[in-house]
Amino acid sequence: LIITIVQFMVITKGAERVSLLRAALKRRELASFLVPRTDEYQNEYVPPSGERLYWLTGFSGSAGLAIIQRKRAALFVDGRYTLQAREQVDGSVFEIFQIPMTRPSEWLAEHSRKGDKIGYDPRLHTVAEIARLKQALSAKGAELVAQKTNPVDAVWKDRPGVPLEPVTPHALEYSGKPASEKIAELKRILRDAKQDAALLTLPESIAWAFNIRGADVPHTPLPLSFAIIHARKKPELFIAPQKLSDNVRGVLSEHLTIREPKALSASLKALGKAKAKVRLDPQTAPCWFASQLTKAGAKTVEGSDPCLLPKAIKNQAEMDGARAAHIRDGAAICEFLAWLDREAASGSVDEIQAAERLEQFRAETGELKDLSFDTISGAGPNGAIVHYRVSRATNRKLAKGSLYLVDSGAQYVDGTTDVTRTVAIGMPTKDMRRHFTLVLQGHIAVATARFPRGTRGQDLDPLARLPLWQAGLDFDHGTGHGVGSYLSVHEGPQRISRLGAAPLEPGMIISNEPGYYQEGDYGIRIENLVLVTPPETIKGGDREMMGFETLTLAPIDRRLIDASMLTNAELDWLNGYHAQVRKIIGPLVDKDTRAWLKEATASLP
Amino acid sequence: LIITIVQFMVITKGAERVSLLRAALKRRELASFLVPRTDEYQNEYVPPSGERLYWLTGFSGSAGLAIIQRKRAALFVDGRYTLQAREQVDGSVFEIFQIPMTRPSEWLAEHSRKGDKIGYDPRLHTVAEIARLKQALSAKGAELVAQKTNPVDAVWKDRPGVPLEPVTPHALEYSGKPASEKIAELKRILRDAKQDAALLTLPESIAWAFNIRGADVPHTPLPLSFAIIHARKKPELFIAPQKLSDNVRGVLSEHLTIREPKALSASLKALGKAKAKVRLDPQTAPCWFASQLTKAGAKTVEGSDPCLLPKAIKNQAEMDGARAAHIRDGAAICEFLAWLDREAASGSVDEIQAAERLEQFRAETGELKDLSFDTISGAGPNGAIVHYRVSRATNRKLAKGSLYLVDSGAQYVDGTTDVTRTVAIGMPTKDMRRHFTLVLQGHIAVATARFPRGTRGQDLDPLARLPLWQAGLDFDHGTGHGVGSYLSVHEGPQRISRLGAAPLEPGMIISNEPGYYQEGDYGIRIENLVLVTPPETIKGGDREMMGFETLTLAPIDRRLIDASMLTNAELDWLNGYHAQVRKIIGPLVDKDTRAWLKEATASLP
Repeated sequence: LIITIVQFMVITKGAERVSLLRAALKRRELASFLVPRTDEYQNEYVPPSGERLYWLTGFSGSAGLAIIQRKRAALFVDGRYTLQAREQVDGSVFEIFQIPMTRPSEWLAEHSRKGDKIGYDPRLHTVAEIARLKQALSAKGAELVAQKTNPVDAVWKDRPGVPLEPVTPHALEYSGKPASEKIAELKRILRDAKQDAALLTLPESIAWAFNIRGADVPHTPLPLSFAIIHARKKPELFIAPQKLSDNVRGVLSEHLTIREPKALSASLKALGKAKAKVRLDPQTAPCWFASQLTKAGAKTVEGSDPCLLPKAIKNQAEMDGARAAHIRDGAAICEFLAWLDREAASGSVDEIQAAERLEQFRAETGELKDLSFDTISGAGPNGAIVHYRVSRATNRKLAKGSLYLVDSGAQYVDGTTDVTRTVAIGMPTKDMRRHFTLVLQGHIAVATARFPRGTRGQDLDPLARLPLWQAGLDFDHGTGHGVGSYLSVHEGPQRISRLGAAPLEPGMIISNEPGYYQEGDYGIRIENLVLVTPPETIKGGDREMMGFETLTLAPIDRRLIDASMLTNAELDWLNGYHAQVRKIIGPLVDKDTRAWLKEATASLP
Repeated sequence: LIITIVQFMVITKGAERVSLLRAALKRRELASFLVPRTDEYQNEYVPPSGERLYWLTGFSGSAGLAIIQRKRAALFVDGRYTLQAREQVDGSVFEIFQIPMTRPSEWLAEHSRKGDKIGYDPRLHTVAEIARLKQALSAKGAELVAQKTNPVDAVWKDRPGVPLEPVTPHALEYSGKPASEKIAELKRILRDAKQDAALLTLPESIAWAFNIRGADVPHTPLPLSFAIIHARKKPELFIAPQKLSDNVRGVLSEHLTIREPKALSASLKALGKAKAKVRLDPQTAPCWFASQLTKAGAKTVEGSDPCLLPKAIKNQAEMDGARAAHIRDGAAICEFLAWLDREAASGSVDEIQAAERLEQFRAETGELKDLSFDTISGAGPNGAIVHYRVSRATNRKLAKGSLYLVDSGAQYVDGTTDVTRTVAIGMPTKDMRRHFTLVLQGHIAVATARFPRGTRGQDLDPLARLPLWQAGLDFDHGTGHGVGSYLSVHEGPQRISRLGAAPLEPGMIISNEPGYYQEGDYGIRIENLVLVTPPETIKGGDREMMGFETLTLAPIDRRLIDASMLTNAELDWLNGYHAQVRKIIGPLVDKDTRAWLKEATASLP
C-alpha cells in the first residue's frame, strides 16, 4: 500500500462544467440544482463514480454541497474545509460559504423566487434532509423537484463505472455471531414492532448484518449494496453479481435472496402491493426510497436503522479483536515513534516521508488491509489545520522546535484503529508544554471517568474541555466518534460531543481526542480509542458505574508534559498507562525500539 | 410570619368526593377525567381555590395528576412524593403510581377503550401536554374532550374564592427598567417576527413585564392575571379590579389597558376577527387559549413566552439587588448556624424549632416579605428525603452524631434567595465526611467552572456529579434551577440538569446544589446561588470565558470536610469563599456570631 498524496489542483474546467450543467437545468426548467458530496449510500468515502462534487467544483473534502443556479453557483463547506475549498475551487465560478454561518437552506431561500423549481437527485439526499429543505423553502413558495436522472451524470462524459470489487465473508471468529442469528434478531425486532420490513440503505449496516466485507470505497471495507429485511421471509440483498464468487454466493444464499441492483424497484413495488409497513431511517435513507414505497402503496414508518445499535455494541469476539488489533497497531506506532525520534531531530524528515514510514510499519505487520483514513501528518502550522491532508504543495519539514501531529489508523480484519500523537521535534516551548498538558488533562478526565447507565456522550464532552476552558482555550470539534469493527472509522450512534444524545452502552468503541490548535503555529491532539465497560460496583459506592478501557497503546510524549500541572490522580493514570504500554508492546518490538520505549514510558515526575 | 407546619392528614372524604365526581362523569358521558395539581396559571404554588387535587385526593405535593374513571382512580406522582402520597391518600380509593415508571398517558391508553371520552379542563393543561396525550391515545381510538366547566368545581361545595390580594408596583430601583421600556421591547420582538400579539399566561411573566408584584399565592409575590401584548397597541391586562388601588390603576393605565378577567374571551375573539397572528408558548399556555383563538379565526404561532429570556437575564439593578439580598440573608443564616451550633449540640433542638428559629432570624432583618418556599428542615433520615416537609408527625430531634440538612430561602423586595447547608450535630462519621467532601467537590467544580458562550446547563451538570460517580454514588435531582428577582424561586429557561438545553447567559441566576442521600440515614446537600458572569479574557487564553459569581454567603461546615481529599485548587476555592463570607458578613452580625464565624471560616487544612 502506498499512501495517496492529494494533488491540490484547481480544476480549471469548473466554468465549462458548470455551464454544461446550466444548459441541462434550462432544458429541465430548473432554477437550481443541488450537488452534494455524498453518494446514494450516504458514504463518507465515495467511489470515483460518485465524486460528482469533486468533478464539478474541484473540491475534494469529505463533506460539502454545491448549489448551481442559472446565474449563481455556491459551494458550502464547514470550518474544516474553508481553506482547502479556497485553494481547490475556482472562485470566479463558485462563491464559497462556511456552514453554519451561512446555511444552504437559508441561502437557497434567499436566492429563490416564488414558483422556482429546485431540482435534486432523490437518491443522494436523505428523507430528513429534504424535509428540512422543504420547510425552509415553503415560506418562499419555491418547490423542490425530485429528478429521475442526475443532470451531472448526463454531462459527465468520462464518468468512471461503479466499483465492482469482490465481496469477502467476514469470519465468525471476528464477527462473533453468525449472520443467521443477526438476521433472526432483526426479524424479531420487526415482528415485535409489527413492521413487515426494514430498508437497509447503509452499506455498513448490510456488511454487519450479513457478515460480509468488500473493497468498493477507500479505507472502509464496504461492498456497496442495498437490502430489505423482511419480518417473515429471507432478507433481499441487491448487489452487482460480479462482486460475488460462486463460493460467496453459495454461503450468502443460505439465508438471503440475492438480487441484481435493478431488481430493487420491483421489490419496493411488491412491498407496496402487499400494503406492507416498511421501516426506514429518515436520517440515513435516501428520500427516493420513501417516495417509491409511498407511490407503490406501502406505509413507511420512520425508525432508526435496526442495525445501528447492535453494530455499535461490540460482542466478545469483536472486543477481543479490537484489543488484538490495537496491540498490533501499537507495536507499529511505537516503531514509528522511535524511528521519528531518531530521524526527525535533525529537522530533515517531512510530512510525506513520516506518513509513508508509518504506513510501512503498519504494512510490515503483514495484517494491514488498508488505512482507516488518509493519514493526517501535520508539521508546525499544518498541525493546526484539524483535517489537514498532506499534499506535495503543502508538505513541510518537521522543523526543530516545532510540534508534529500525526492522526492515523488502520483496518485489520479483527479491528479498526485510529490514534493521534503529537510529538515535540527538538525542544518545545513553555506554551507548547502548557497547552499539551491541558489537552492531556482533558484526555485523562475522559479516560478515567466513571458514569451511570444512561449517560450520553454529551455528558462527557465537557470533561475533555474543562481544563482548557479554565485557561481560556477550547477546540472546535467533538471529543470522540464511534468506531466500527473492521468497518467505518466513524460510526454512530455513539459520540462524545455537544450533540451526542445516544446513551453510551457497554461494548461501544469510541475515540477520546481533545485537542488545541494555535492557528499558524501548531496543533495538539491526543487520541486513544476506548471501550465502554459494563456497570460494576465500586468499593464504598452504592450504584454501579460504567467506564472506559483504553485500547490504544502508544506513549504520550513526556517531553510535552508539565508534570507540575497534574494532580496525583492524573499522574497515576499517565504512569499506569505508560507501564501498560511498556509491558504489552515491549516484547513485540525490536531491541532499539524497546530501549526507546523504556525511556518514553518512564514514570513521571 | 410563622412557618406553616403541614398537617399530614388522610382526607377520609376521598371516597365520597370521588363518587360525587363519578356521578358528574356519568352525566357528561365521560369515561375518565383528569385532575392535575396545577391551576390555570401553571402555578407551582396554587391558591386554595386551585387546590383541586388536594381536595379530591388529600395529596398536597407540588406536582401530581389524578385520573378518575368510572371504576378506577389513579394518582400519579414522581419519586419525590411517593412516600408522602401513600401517607396522605386513601389507598382503598386511589391506586398510586410513580412517574416515569408508570406514565399517566400509558396508563390511560391501557385503561381506555375505543370510543371512550376522556374529559379534561382545557384551562389547566398546556398545549404541549394535551398534544402528547392525544398522540398517546390516538392508537387506542379514545378521544380527549375539553370540558366547558370543571366537574370538580361543580361538586366542590365549599370551594374558596379566588384570591384578591392587592397588587403593588415593583419599584424602578429594583426592576432596573421601566415597564414602558419592557413593553416597547416586547412589541418590537413581535413586529420583528411579524406577529400581531403574544399571550402572557404566566403570572411571573406579567409581573416582570409590568413591574408589579402581588400576594395571591404563597411564597411567590404574584398577582394572578393574564395579559396580551399587542404589536401595535397597548397591552391588555386581565385582572380582578379589587386587586388594584386607584393609585396602582393610575400608574398601570399609563401603558396598559386594564380589563376584567371575564373580558378575556372577547379580546381573544377580537384577535380572531382581525385574523391576527398570535404567539403562544405551547409549554406554558393552557390549550383553552389556543382553541379559543383558533375558533375565533386567529392564527396561533408557537413560540416561547417572550418574557422568559429577558426575565432570566438580570439587569444591573437586579444583580445589585440580588447581591444585597444575599448579604442580608447571609447574615441571618450565619446567626442561625451559630445559634444551631450552640443549641443543637445537646441534641434537644427539633426540626420545627430549627426552621422557626431560622425564619425568625430572617424576619429580624426587617426586610423579609415571605419565605421563598417551605423550609426543608431534615434531621438524620429525614434529610435523605429530597423534598421533605416537616410535620408534627415526622418531626425529629437533631440527634448527636447525625447530620441536619436545611434548605430554605427568602423573598426580599430586592431579591430571592435559596440556600442549603448540611451541618454535623456532634461528631460525624468517616463516611459522612467522605460523602460530604465528594458533594463539596462537585459544588466547587460548578462554582469554579469557566465556559464559553453557548454552554448549556446540561454541559455543566456532569461536573457536579463526577466526584460522586468516581466513587459509585450519584443524586437523583438536577444540579440547579433558575431563580427570579423577587419572583419565583424556580424559573426557566436556565437550569443545570441533564435536560438543561438553554444556553447560560450572563446575568442569569441559578442554584448550584449537588447532594448525596443515604436512605434511612442522612442527606447531604450544599447549595449556593450563583450569577453567570460575562465572557472575559483569561490570561494566557485566546477565547473569552463566562463563569459564576457565588451570591450566597454562609460557611460550609468544616467539620464535614476531609481536606485530604481536596486538590489545592479546591482548597483555594473553599478558603477564599470562607474568607469572603467572614469579611462581608462579619461586620453585620453580633459579637458571638462574629466569633463563631471566625472559627467556622478559618482556613483549611
